[in-house]
Amino acid sequence: MLQICRNRSTDSRTMTAAGLEEYRKRFRTELDQVVDFWLKYSHDKEYGGFFNCLGKDGKVYDELKYVWLQGRQVWMYSRLYRTMERYHRPEILEAAKIGGAFLQKFARVQTSSGPWKCAFCLTRDGQAVKVQRTIFSECFYVMAMDELSRITHDKEMQADAESMMGQLVHWVRIDSSGLGRPQLPGDQPVNSMAVPMMLLCLVDQLTEGRTEVAEKYKELSEWCVEQILQHIQRDGKAILENVTFDGKELPGCQGRVQNPGHALEAGWFLLQYAHAKGDAQLQKTAVDKFIEVPFHTGWDKQHGGLFYFLDVDGHCPTQLEWNMKLWWPHCEALIACLMAYSYTREPMLMDRFKQIYDYTFSHFSDEEHGEWFGYLSRRGEVVLDFKGGPFKGFFHVPRCLYMCEKLLDGLLKGERS
Amino acid sequence: MLQICRNRSTDSRTMTAAGLEEYRKRFRTELDQVVDFWLKYSHDKEYGGFFNCLGKDGKVYDELKYVWLQGRQVWMYSRLYRTMERYHRPEILEAAKIGGAFLQKFARVQTSSGPWKCAFCLTRDGQAVKVQRTIFSECFYVMAMDELSRITHDKEMQADAESMMGQLVHWVRIDSSGLGRPQLPGDQPVNSMAVPMMLLCLVDQLTEGRTEVAEKYKELSEWCVEQILQHIQRDGKAILENVTFDGKELPGCQGRVQNPGHALEAGWFLLQYAHAKGDAQLQKTAVDKFIEVPFHTGWDKQHGGLFYFLDVDGHCPTQLEWNMKLWWPHCEALIACLMAYSYTREPMLMDRFKQIYDYTFSHFSDEEHGEWFGYLSRRGEVVLDFKGGPFKGFFHVPRCLYMCEKLLDGLLKGERS
Repeated sequence: MLQICRNRSTDSRTMTAAGLEEYRKRFRTELDQVVDFWLKYSHDKEYGGFFNCLGKDGKVYDELKYVWLQGRQVWMYSRLYRTMERYHRPEILEAAKIGGAFLQKFARVQTSSGPWKCAFCLTRDGQAVKVQRTIFSECFYVMAMDELSRITHDKEMQADAESMMGQLVHWVRIDSSGLGRPQLPGDQPVNSMAVPMMLLCLVDQLTEGRTEVAEKYKELSEWCVEQILQHIQRDGKAILENVTFDGKELPGCQGRVQNPGHALEAGWFLLQYAHAKGDAQLQKTAVDKFIEVPFHTGWDKQHGGLFYFLDVDGHCPTQLEWNMKLWWPHCEALIACLMAYSYTREPMLMDRFKQIYDYTFSHFSDEEHGEWFGYLSRRGEVVLDFKGGPFKGFFHVPRCLYMCEKLLDGLLKGERS
Repeated sequence: MLQICRNRSTDSRTMTAAGLEEYRKRFRTELDQVVDFWLKYSHDKEYGGFFNCLGKDGKVYDELKYVWLQGRQVWMYSRLYRTMERYHRPEILEAAKIGGAFLQKFARVQTSSGPWKCAFCLTRDGQAVKVQRTIFSECFYVMAMDELSRITHDKEMQADAESMMGQLVHWVRIDSSGLGRPQLPGDQPVNSMAVPMMLLCLVDQLTEGRTEVAEKYKELSEWCVEQILQHIQRDGKAILENVTFDGKELPGCQGRVQNPGHALEAGWFLLQYAHAKGDAQLQKTAVDKFIEVPFHTGWDKQHGGLFYFLDVDGHCPTQLEWNMKLWWPHCEALIACLMAYSYTREPMLMDRFKQIYDYTFSHFSDEEHGEWFGYLSRRGEVVLDFKGGPFKGFFHVPRCLYMCEKLLDGLLKGERS
C-alpha cells in the first residue's frame, strides 16, 4: 500500500507495475487455492478419474463422471505441471496420469452409428451413461491426451490424440454421419462458432513446438480462422453464434443468438493465432470485433457482468438462463482483455480488464470455502452454489488464473511481446 | 362489491357462492382473451399449422413449428369446440382441422432407427428439423388426433390415433430401441414420472364415452397408476421425479430431483382416475401426497410461487432454472387444488387454491397485451417476455382456465360430484 502511494505520486509507469504486481499476486493466490480445492476433493481414489459434482464445501453430491470435464482436468494438471515451476510436483503428475488412464480405459464406446464415439457421461466405475451427437467429448479427449503425453513422453498416447483429431476433422469437414444425428431435410448445415473455435484450439495444442505437425495442420487452422471470421455480421457490429457456411445469417432465434463470453473466447484464440503469425490485421479484427463488440453488447449496464445470451434484434432469447451471469464468460473476458492489452498496450483494454476483474472477483470467488461459484442471477446473487457440476469443472477458472498470471509475468518483465 | 358485502353480513354459504362466481368470471374472461390471442396471432394462413413463437404483443419472432405445441393446440381447439357452447364456432373447428391436417402431413418422419418417429420441430413449410429420442411428440399427436376426430367424426383419424397409441405402448413397455437411443451399460432403466402420467392422460383421452376401448386399456391405466404411485418416497414425505421400475430411489441428482408442478399435475390426473373408479383411497393419496406434499415442499416462503426444481436432500439442483417461477406449474396447481376441493369440499384446499390464484393472476397474466408471461425470476419479475416459445404454446394456460371454469360451473351448480 505504501509502495503504491509512493509510486502514484512519483511515476505513473512504475505505479502501473505495482498495480500489475497486485493483480498477479491475486491471480497466483487464487490459482493455488483452486488447485488445492480440486486436489483435495475431486480425486476418486477407488475407481480413478475425478468426481465432477462438488458442493460449495467440496462434498461430492453426485458420482457421475463427465467426459468433457475429465479431459479438461487432465489437460489442466498436465499444463500446470509442464509450464509452471511451482506445480512441477509428483502429485500433479500422478493426478494427470490417473485421469488419463481412466479416460483411455472408459471414454470410448461402441455405438450403432459408427466405429466409436466418446461418451458424454460415465458412472463412477466407468460405464457409459450417455453419448452426445456432437464432437466435444472427443475434443477434450484430444486436448487431455496430447498435453499429458508431453509430460509423460508417451508416444503412443500422442498418436492416440492425433488419430482422434483425424476422426474429428473427418466428422466436421467430410462426413458427419458417424455422429449419429439423423439426416433431416429441414436441418440445414450450420456454421456454429464452437466448432472452428474448438478445432483451432486443438491445432494450437497439437502443434506447439512441432514444426512438422504445424505444417500438417496449416490449412486446417486457416480454415478455422476463416470460419470464425464469418460470424462477424451486421456491418461488423455483431458476432452471431450461428451462420451459414458461406457466412450468411440464418433465420429465427438460432440465427440471431449472441453469446458474448463465447465471442470473447474466440477473441483470444484469434489473438494467439495472429500473434504467432505476426498478422497485425487479424490482431486488429480480434480486438475490434471479438473483444470490443461483445463487451459493449454483452455488458449489463444496470447490474454489471456479462449476459449469457442475447438476441441481436432485441427479442427476448428463448434460453431460460439468458440473463444469468456465468463464471466462464468472465474468465474468457479476463484472458481476452489482458492478452489484447499485452499485445497492444492500449490503455482502454486495461480499463476493460479492470472492470471485468472487479465484477468477477467480488462476485464469483468464494472466500469461505475457496474456488468460484458458477451461476449468478442477473442481480449478481449466487443461484447455484456448487463448485463443480455437469458443465463446471477444473478448467475455466484455473485456465483463466494461469493464463492471466503468465500474461502478467510477461507484462512485468516489460516484454512488448 | 355491494352484493359481496351484503352476503358477508348475512350468509357465509351465499358469500362463498359469490366468491366462486367472481373466480368463474375471471377464468372465463381470461380464457376468452387467451383464445382470441392465439386465433389472432398464431395461424399460418400460407402453410397451415401454427406459429409457436409469439412475442409479448403476438408478433412472430421465429417461424419454427414445434410438434408438441402443434398437437396441443389442435387438441385445445377441438376440446373447446366440443365441450363449451361459446366456442362451438366454425372458426374454432376450422383452426383445429387445419392444424390436424398439417400434423398428419408433416409430423411423421422416417429415421434409420425404426419405422418412423414424430419430429420434434419442423420448418414453417413442414420439413423436419429435429427428432427427439423420447415419446412426447407422438403423445401429443395422439391427443390431437383423437380429440379432433371426435368433432369431425373421422374414423380413420381416430384409428390413426389408436395405432400410434399402440406404438407408444410398445416403446414404453416392450422395446424402446425404436426411439433411437443407443443402449449403454451405464444407462439404467428409469421410471420417469412423465411417462406413466402421459400414458394415463392418453388413456383418459381415448376412452371417454367408449366402453369397449376403456376395457382394452384397463390394464394399462392400472399399470400407469401403479408406476406413478412408486414416486411417493421418503415415508410419503416426497414425490421424486425419477425412481427405479420397482419403486426404489436412484442415486445422484437424477434420483433426488423434485418437480412440484409435475407432481401437482400427476395429482389431478390421479384424482380424475380415482373419481371415475370411485376409489376413495386413491383420492386420499392423490390429495395427501400429490397435492399437499409438493405444495409444502415447492412453495417459496420468501417470494411466493412454486419453484421449478428442488433436491430432496437440500442440495442445489443442477438445472440453471431451478428457482424460476414458471407459468405451467401454477396452472397445474390451480386445477389440482380446485378439483380436490370440488371432490372433498375440504376448506384447506380452497385456501391453497386462493393462495396460488393470487400469485398466478398478479404475476403471469399480462393486462397490456393479453395472454400470460411464462417465465419469472425467483423474485417474480418477468425474465422472458414472450407469450409463445419452444415449450409454451396454446395449452397449459387455456387448459387451466377451461378446467377451472368447468369445475366452478360444477361447484356453483352445487353438485357434490
